[in-house]
Formats: sequence, structure tokens, C-alpha cells
Amino acid sequence: MVGVVGAGQLARMMQQAAIGLGVPLRLLAEARDSSAGHVITDTTVGDYTDYDTLSTWAKGNTVVTFDHEHVSTAHLESLVADGVIVRPAPGALVHAQDKVVMRARLSSLGVPGPRHAVVEAADGVAAFASTVGGFPVVLKTARGGYDGKGVFVVDDEAGAVGVLASTPDAVAVLAEEKVGFRRELAVLVARAPSGQLAAYPVVESVQRQGICVEVTAPAPDLDPDLAVEAQGIAMRVAAELGVTGLLAVELFETTDGRVLVNELAMRPHNTGHWSIDGAVTSQFENHLRAVLDLPLGDPTPRVRWSVMVNILGGDAPTLYDGFPHVQARDPQIRVHLYGKQVEPGRKVGHVTAYGDNLAEVRERARHAAAWFEGT
Amino acid sequence: MVGVVGAGQLARMMQQAAIGLGVPLRLLAEARDSSAGHVITDTTVGDYTDYDTLSTWAKGNTVVTFDHEHVSTAHLESLVADGVIVRPAPGALVHAQDKVVMRARLSSLGVPGPRHAVVEAADGVAAFASTVGGFPVVLKTARGGYDGKGVFVVDDEAGAVGVLASTPDAVAVLAEEKVGFRRELAVLVARAPSGQLAAYPVVESVQRQGICVEVTAPAPDLDPDLAVEAQGIAMRVAAELGVTGLLAVELFETTDGRVLVNELAMRPHNTGHWSIDGAVTSQFENHLRAVLDLPLGDPTPRVRWSVMVNILGGDAPTLYDGFPHVQARDPQIRVHLYGKQVEPGRKVGHVTAYGDNLAEVRERARHAAAWFEGT
Repeated sequence: MVGVVGAGQLARMMQQAAIGLGVPLRLLAEARDSSAGHVITDTTVGDYTDYDTLSTWAKGNTVVTFDHEHVSTAHLESLVADGVIVRPAPGALVHAQDKVVMRARLSSLGVPGPRHAVVEAADGVAAFASTVGGFPVVLKTARGGYDGKGVFVVDDEAGAVGVLASTPDAVAVLAEEKVGFRRELAVLVARAPSGQLAAYPVVESVQRQGICVEVTAPAPDLDPDLAVEAQGIAMRVAAELGVTGLLAVELFETTDGRVLVNELAMRPHNTGHWSIDGAVTSQFENHLRAVLDLPLGDPTPRVRWSVMVNILGGDAPTLYDGFPHVQARDPQIRVHLYGKQVEPGRKVGHVTAYGDNLAEVRERARHAAAWFEGT
Repeated sequence: MVGVVGAGQLARMMQQAAIGLGVPLRLLAEARDSSAGHVITDTTVGDYTDYDTLSTWAKGNTVVTFDHEHVSTAHLESLVADGVIVRPAPGALVHAQDKVVMRARLSSLGVPGPRHAVVEAADGVAAFASTVGGFPVVLKTARGGYDGKGVFVVDDEAGAVGVLASTPDAVAVLAEEKVGFRRELAVLVARAPSGQLAAYPVVESVQRQGICVEVTAPAPDLDPDLAVEAQGIAMRVAAELGVTGLLAVELFETTDGRVLVNELAMRPHNTGHWSIDGAVTSQFENHLRAVLDLPLGDPTPRVRWSVMVNILGGDAPTLYDGFPHVQARDPQIRVHLYGKQVEPGRKVGHVTAYGDNLAEVRERARHAAAWFEGT
């Protein structure tokens, strides 16, 4: 009995894997009418920020895990003190919740990342900028960001004033150098409580307005040494932080040929959706196996190339009408719709194409997603 | 909104495909505590033999389809008269429900099958036996059989007396020659209302006490002409009978090198479970696409060999304890548990292995299933 906090598409896709494993999922959902609430029978509708609600629900589970990283560390520590098994544990998860904590820890481990500083006022941002070659610099709220939210690029001290004025006093702000990067990469690693690790290949991800829109697995034309380094970073971080479940490490491949850690997530991740159709074991199944302390499945790709393209909400009120053309044009395309209300820019599904010819695979996936989006 | 009558593992595995397609399933279940009832939120518990229950439920669906073939033809015809879309339609489904109707229709189409006759008394069985070279002959109740139930091999007229005495007066009994066969084969075809067909490769199935226990896809060492003939039979039967959804054709490969139709089913079928992991598009997804009149997905195998072995209930009360050894021994094995109470001999799950070396693949699948069974 695996409890999942949060009823988005990640919990929904966990359910597909859970059905195969014969493992019941229990959901704590923000609403019954939610992506995962539609497909998980044992759903409690409640507010995870309310400790009594969270705690009462959590005690019915063998293990508690997450669709998102928004549950407060204090709540999770209380659950653990009450005997609930939480995976990842709050002491690991905090590194995916708080960018200040994450940067400090990775620096202490010597893991490569952008230069950074905690800033409190605009003159502090300017002082930091002067140490990294000047503006622009990136400002990030320590907590609460996702899909580009809470991340700002500022071009001067006046810009920093505006951003800092818009953030609550209680939330720390991190300044980071704006890294010149060739592209973004990501590595997913599943880690079991036993310490067993399974690392997926390094993938290339394309972001638009802070949202992951396309992933190619494995990352094309990646220097083999850099691939080993990236996987090594992810496995080391997973082990040092004591992650149980999936760890996603988002990286910059810099223009001068290094990899720098950008973000961490501790749950199934958009950069791993290709694995449902493209790998021997999907990220969703391996997340469940890891939090249940079962032996991990093989993360190896089944095909030369997989390309995943997100479907973002467009003008069409329903995605269903996209099927006839998309499926008739490409009988091999894999479509995943999330059962969510279509709203402009919202992640409402994804498609995956796979095959031997990268250019063709990419064109197939892009065409299918664009058709569903109505563009 | 696809309504499914019956809450067994076939409906459960349909749900995995439906989640991906973003298509809501609605279930008419014999009990909430059922294989599919555990994983489909919109479940009505009710008795499909009660027309009011069936009809009230059915009217909320875009299309109604099946986990099993036990709904009476009369009920289905009434639903259709009431405007419910039923796929497969009752005029097609009756060929999977009534072996007498099926044999008559296939004979009229010239589709090869065992010699057969409807029998009413033991002397009729003896008369039939004398036309096919003598006893033993096979007696089958026209309706209600599955997993070997309703099928009897009788060695003499006295045996026929016993079987006929055990069958209700209302049910017709079919006598068939006992075919000398090399092995059993099966072909699955999905057919959309548009007439589009997608044929899976011919597979070899192994039955034990009337229950399918192992399937190899594709059937090894099959004469290519015979493979074409078998697929041709399945596609022709699907078209002539107007099947919508999946048609499974079970065949004998005779010792003298022919194929004869043994049984028909019109739903996802045990001989197609390999397709979840081994084909581009699973039988469950193609069944849903067919009944929704969406373009069909590619049924091509993704790998050289797939072997599916059923897990039958054994002494262990739970299957979960099988995971640590099975998954540690074989990180590529695909396990599917059905969330059913373990009872001796009951189908409670299956495993699929795939790869390039048939002997290895078969050993992996057999070992995993045997371990779950506790043997």
C-alpha cells in the first residue's frame, strides 16, 4: 500500500505501473477531479498542508511518497516521528524543496554547479554580480518554484529590486551566475533503501519559458566522458543525500564543455517520461520499486532513440479530437493524455516516438504534439 | 467513456491502456473487491444478468464492451434497440458465446475446423463418432464454457451418457472430432467499425487442463504459408462476422500440417498478454481504439521473442513475497499481478520475458512464474 501525496500526472502514471505490480496506491488529492484522482480508487480528498489531514491519511500506508515536493519538511519530520515511512525521507527531500539548502550541500560535496550566493537586498545582488563577471544574473526563490516559477533573470540592480520586492520576506533568495550553456541535460537515478542504484542514460531536454517541452534519450552527440561524469554526479548525489525513490538531476552542458547541476527533483520527472515506452523499466515502476525496497528494474533503453514532446494546452477544449489524424498518420506513436482540463500552456499530455533515425523520430513526436495542441 | 462489463484482469489491463489514452472507463462489476474494481474509480456493482441494472448502467456510456462473453444475446439486442452502442455487436458476439452458432457460421464460410455435429443423445454421439473414425470424441456445451469448463473428451458411448446427463436440457451440445494436433496456435486481430484491421503475429499457446499457461510470440518454426493462412482466417472471420474490437482465433496446427479453428473469443485474450511488453501497441490499447473507432496501432513485435507464462494460484497466500528473488534474478522480467485473491489454479498474474534467444527467454519466464507459484 503506497500512499502518494498529490494527484497530478506523475501519480496518474505511477498508477499504470502500480496496476502491473499489483500494488494498491492510496492518494491524498487536492480534488477528486484531478489527473490521478480519476484513476485511483482509494483517494482521500484533503489538504496536505493541514497536518491532521496528512497524518490521518498517512498512517494507513506502508510507505508514503510524492507526486510533488510541496509538503513541508516540518510536517514530514512529524510523520516520521510518528512512525510513518516516508520515501524520500524529509532529510533528503529538503534538497529538492529548498534551493539554498541544495546549493550548500552540493558545494560541500564538491559537485559542480553555478557560482551562487544567498542575497537579501539588491545591493547584495550587485555585489554578487561583480564576482561572476557582471549582470545578467539569475535570482531564484529558495522554495516553491517549479516549471519556471520562482526563477528570474535580472539585467541590472533595478531589476533585482523589482524581483526582491515581489518575494515574501520569509523566503530566502538565491543568486546564481547565468551559465552560458550549449544545452540542458538530465539524469534520472532510482535508489532503493538498500543502496541499490539504477541510472537511466543522460538525456537532452529543451525548455521553453521554464517548462520542459522536449526530451531526447539518450542525449545526442554527448561526449562519453561527460556522460559518465553526469551519471556519476547523479549516483553520488543520490547516495550522499540518502535519496530513496527517483532522483532527477538537471544539468547544464556549458559552452566550455563542463556539466553543472541546475536543479534536483525527487520523484518521477518530465525528463523520464520517455522511459514508459523507451526503456525496459519505466521511471514510474522503478520509483515504486525503490520506495517499496524491491530490486530495481533495468533502466536500459529498448531502442536507439526516444523523443518525448509535451502536449501543452492550446485553443482546443479537448484533446480527444486529435487522435484520428495522429494515430492514422503514425501507427507507432505513443500518446499519453493526463485527463486534465485543457488550459493554455498547461501540461496536459505527452507523446513519445522511438526508432533508429533521430531526425524522423523527432519529427514524428513534434508533429503529433503540435497536432494535439492545435498548432 | 467506455463501459466495460466484467471486472476481471482483462478489464484491469484495459485500464492501464485507458489511462494512457486519457479515456475514462466505467465498470459494471460483480463486486467492488475485484481485479478491475480495485483500479477503476467509476465502478457500479451490479448483476449484468438483470436487464434493468445492465441497461441503466449502459446508457451512461459512449460505447459498451466486455471483459467476458457471458452477457445474454437477448439483453445485448435490447440494449442496441435502446440506442446503446455495443462493441462487439451482439450479432458478432454470439459466435463467441455459442459454439453451435460459431461452427455453423464458420462452416458456411468454408473456414477449416474440426468435423462436428449437434448431438442430443448418446446414440447420436456414437453415430457421429462412427463418421470421424471412432471414439474418442470431444463434447462441448454450446454456451457457458471457458478455461476448459464445458469441454469433455469421451472415450465411448457410456462416457457420452455421463456427460449428457450432466448438462442442462436447455443447452445444446456439440460433438467434435478429436483433432490430432502438433500444437495450439492463436491469432489476434483488432477490427474497427471502419473495417480497419490490425493482425498480431501467430503465437503458440500451451494449455494445461484447459487453461492457457504459456504463449510464445511469434510461434517458433511455423511454416510461413501456414502463418499467412492463419492470419488470413482471423482477418476474414473478423470481417465476415462484423467484429468490432479484438477477435482471438484459437487454432490447432494438425499433425498433417493444417490449421483448424478451435475457438473464438471477442475481447482481449490470454494469448495476447505478451503484447503489453512485446508489441508496439498492446492488445488492450488496440481493443479500446477499435471500439472507439480510432485508428489502430501497430501490432508488430518490438523484439525477436516474447514468452508469457501465467501465474496460477498455489500455496502462497500472497504473490508479493515473490518479488525480491524474481526481480533481483532478472532485472528485465515484466511482472503483471492481477490483485486477485490467490486460489489454487486461478489465474492471478502473468510474467513476460523477451529477448533474442528463445531458450533463454522461455527459461526466464518459466522460472519467474514458478517462483511466484511457489513451485
